[in-house]
Amino acid sequence: MRYGVLGTGEVGRTLAGRLVELGHEVTLGSRTADNPVAREWATAVAGRAHAGTFARAAEAGEAVINAVSGRVALDALRAAGAAHLDGKILVDVCNPLSFEGGLPRLDPVESDSMGERIQRAFPGARVVKTLNTVNFKVMVDPGRVPGEHHMFVCGEDAAAKQRVTAWLGELGWPAARVLDLGGIAAARATEMYLPLWLRMSRVFGHADLNVEVRRAG
Amino acid sequence: MRYGVLGTGEVGRTLAGRLVELGHEVTLGSRTADNPVAREWATAVAGRAHAGTFARAAEAGEAVINAVSGRVALDALRAAGAAHLDGKILVDVCNPLSFEGGLPRLDPVESDSMGERIQRAFPGARVVKTLNTVNFKVMVDPGRVPGEHHMFVCGEDAAAKQRVTAWLGELGWPAARVLDLGGIAAARATEMYLPLWLRMSRVFGHADLNVEVRRAG
Repeated sequence: MRYGVLGTGEVGRTLAGRLVELGHEVTLGSRTADNPVAREWATAVAGRAHAGTFARAAEAGEAVINAVSGRVALDALRAAGAAHLDGKILVDVCNPLSFEGGLPRLDPVESDSMGERIQRAFPGARVVKTLNTVNFKVMVDPGRVPGEHHMFVCGEDAAAKQRVTAWLGELGWPAARVLDLGGIAAARATEMYLPLWLRMSRVFGHADLNVEVRRAG
Repeated sequence: MRYGVLGTGEVGRTLAGRLVELGHEVTLGSRTADNPVAREWATAVAGRAHAGTFARAAEAGEAVINAVSGRVALDALRAAGAAHLDGKILVDVCNPLSFEGGLPRLDPVESDSMGERIQRAFPGARVVKTLNTVNFKVMVDPGRVPGEHHMFVCGEDAAAKQRVTAWLGELGWPAARVLDLGGIAAARATEMYLPLWLRMSRVFGHADLNVEVRRAG
């Protein structure tokens, strides 16, 4: 399968690298065509790995992964182009996070979310929010954390969520550990979990953590 | 030990009832001295159970539990009186939650929390935020949910957190399952977890759920 991965930070490079390892063809997209990080990545893994602009990556992908920071996600997706996202699964893994005096800030928060903003801005895309509740290393290697811990998905398109659940299976998240929280408004819930994740990460001194949802019945 | 429990809703009555069962003396506080729910409760469990105003309950307690809704917590605590809270452990279990079109709203959120507001408004109280991440039935009976799921505490006073951790042990939460998230600003993190909890509760169709924090090492 062909993926376009937007964002050359740790999240984008890690997801793109793992997808290439899994046998997929990946275009890593950045603001400019000559981004040295993306070029180096494409050279290093060669073969099924390509680098290009956000637009080139989105065009090349049968599915697109938004792996840029939440604060610039809409700009990156506009640069990718609505026409290149139309009808495609758009996996949104971003969090609208910044820091102020050591404390995390989220914007949007509570009455809106990045997942919803992206779906509203690109109504032709089949947005599925997932992976934003774990560190980038855990995203592609859930075994870093012991136990049957969970991954959340949400979005308006049931078929897209099924496809993304299968894709999460390739990354190491069995379907039994993927919890469907409903429509894209549930992105508020998973994005607002971030401050708790950050607190725990600070207390533990590392980012290899996740929650296992326990319930009666 | 003598407890003042503020709030005659499900949370207050459940906590107060369990504390009486455990052998403690409890005054259930409400806005007025003749609150029928509080009076009936005091009559029903008799002996170590009393009813009174917020002020009476806070005065009577060696420790005070804020179990009113987050939206009215500061009013209730002002009625309780700063002098009756001074130097005492004030366990805050509230969430500043309301609903709008079926979606949860939190106020304050993100840059502030009820835990912080209460600590700022009552600097003489030793505020410990806890129990706000589970349903009231699970608060006093964690065995309703299978697994080694966790309870969070946070607050500025380490000794107060130790006392509250012991108190959580009486309610069925072993110390190994109590995670100290640091200062009272961590209340932002646990209060902002509520939308995720609510989503999961809706998906599962019940409230007997909690998270078990899994981590490497």
